[in-house]
Amino acid sequence: MINPNQLVTGKTVRAACRNGAWTAPTCGLADGFAQANLVVLPKALAFDFLLFCQRNPKPCPLLDVTEPGDPVPHHVAPDADLRTDLPGYRVWRDGKLVDEPREIPSYWQDDFVSFVIGCSFTFESAMLRAGLPVRHIELGVNVPMFRTNIACRSAGAFHGPLVVSMRPLIPSDAVRAVQITTRYPSVHGAPVHIGDPSAIGIADISRPDFGDAVPIQAGEVPVFWACGVTPQAAIMAAKPPLVITHSPGCMFVTDVRDEELAVG
Amino acid sequence: MINPNQLVTGKTVRAACRNGAWTAPTCGLADGFAQANLVVLPKALAFDFLLFCQRNPKPCPLLDVTEPGDPVPHHVAPDADLRTDLPGYRVWRDGKLVDEPREIPSYWQDDFVSFVIGCSFTFESAMLRAGLPVRHIELGVNVPMFRTNIACRSAGAFHGPLVVSMRPLIPSDAVRAVQITTRYPSVHGAPVHIGDPSAIGIADISRPDFGDAVPIQAGEVPVFWACGVTPQAAIMAAKPPLVITHSPGCMFVTDVRDEELAVG
Repeated sequence: MINPNQLVTGKTVRAACRNGAWTAPTCGLADGFAQANLVVLPKALAFDFLLFCQRNPKPCPLLDVTEPGDPVPHHVAPDADLRTDLPGYRVWRDGKLVDEPREIPSYWQDDFVSFVIGCSFTFESAMLRAGLPVRHIELGVNVPMFRTNIACRSAGAFHGPLVVSMRPLIPSDAVRAVQITTRYPSVHGAPVHIGDPSAIGIADISRPDFGDAVPIQAGEVPVFWACGVTPQAAIMAAKPPLVITHSPGCMFVTDVRDEELAVG
Repeated sequence: MINPNQLVTGKTVRAACRNGAWTAPTCGLADGFAQANLVVLPKALAFDFLLFCQRNPKPCPLLDVTEPGDPVPHHVAPDADLRTDLPGYRVWRDGKLVDEPREIPSYWQDDFVSFVIGCSFTFESAMLRAGLPVRHIELGVNVPMFRTNIACRSAGAFHGPLVVSMRPLIPSDAVRAVQITTRYPSVHGAPVHIGDPSAIGIADISRPDFGDAVPIQAGEVPVFWACGVTPQAAIMAAKPPLVITHSPGCMFVTDVRDEELAVG
C-alpha cells in the first residue's frame, strides 16, 4: 500500500486507486479536495433518480452526472475514470449486495449513468478550520446517522425517509456551524434540525441506525444534517435490477477544491 | 380584465388566469411570491433537459419538475394546474412557433414533463428593497439580454451559449448586488460578470439580443446575471418535435415566497 502522505491531490488518489496501490477508505486523503459518493444506474432508472436528487437537494447534492455510457465525470475530474478510480465498489442486484470488486470494468454497460454526490467531508473540514469540534473525528469513529420521520419527496420508484448525521455542539458553536455550512449547499448545506431528536422521529440518540454512537456532553445540543445515506437507502428500497455504489468510506476524490463549492 | 390590485397571491393570479380574467404579463402581480418560467417537454427529452439544467444551474435554476403526465407542480403550488394557470403559452414544433394559446389542455400528453424554472423577478425585488436602482424597471422596459461567448455545458441534444441579463450599477452598489443576489441561488444567484462586455463576447452593449437597451450612466458598470432565456435558446436550437413554454412575461406565479428561496 502506498504511503497516504503521497496522496495529496484528487489526481494522485485516483491514480493510486486505479493501479491498485490504494484500496482503503479515503478519509484524510487529498486535504482540500472535495470527495464524493458514487451511484451508477442504468439509463432506464436515471431520469427518476435525477428527479429524486433535484427534489431532495439537501441529502442528494449533485456535483456531476455523466452522459449514458460515459465513465468520465467531465465537470469534477475530466481525466478520471469512474470504473477504476475509487478504492472499492459495491454491486447490488434487486437490492442485495452481490459483489465488492476493486474495479467495475467487467460490470460496465453502455447505458450506465453515474451520479457524483457531494459528501460531508467538505463542510466538516470548514468546521474544523473554524475551530469547531467534530466529535466523531475526535474519537476516530464513524459519524452517527439516523432515519427520521421526515419523508423525502418521492420520484418514480425512489422514496424513503430523510437520513441525517448528527454532531453535538454547544449552542454558540451550533450557530457558527449553521453559518459555516450554509456556505456549502452542494455538500448538504445548513443543518435540517437542532435539538430534540424526538421532534424528527429519532427515539434513541444513543442508538444510531448507521455509523457509531458519540457522547453528547452537558451543555451540548445535537445538530442534524441531511446525509448522503438518504439516496442510498432510497435506492436499496427501490430494489433496482442493478446498481453500483462506492464501498463505504471509499469515496471518489475530485479535482474540485472544497472552497470552490462555497457560495457567498 | 380583473383589477390587478386584486391579484395579491399566487393563488389569486392562477385562478384569474384559469378563468380567463387575466391574460397579460404577470410583472408586478402577487408581490412577494416567486414567479417562474415554464418549459413542457415529452418524457423522451426530459432526462437530457433535466441534465442540462443540473449542469447549468445558474441560467436554469429548477424550482420544480413534475412527474410525466402530471400537470401539478406539487412542490411550488400543490393546487395549481400548469395547463391553465398561466396567462398565455407558446407552442413550438421543430423549433417553430405554431400557436399562442391561452391554455393547453388540448395539447396535453400523458408523457409531458413540466419544468418550473426560477426567474429574476425574485432577486430584483430584493435589490429594490435594499434601495438599489434597477434601470429597466425605472424606465418601464424589458431587461436587456445578450448572448455571450460562454458555452453552457451540453446535455444530449441541448447546448448553446449562456445568455445574460444586464443591470447598470455604480461599483459600490454592484458589490451590494453581489451580496444580495448570492442569497438567491435558485433564481440565478450572483452575477456571472462585472464590467467589460467584450470579455464575455458582447460586441455592443447598446444592442441587446433580446429585450430593450438601457443607458449606462457615467460611473456605472454593467453587471451581468445568468438569464432564463438560456434554456429557452438551447431548446429552440435543439428543435424538438414539440415543446410548450410560457408566453414572454406571462410567468407561472407560485405559492413560494421570494424569501423562502433565500439561502443564508
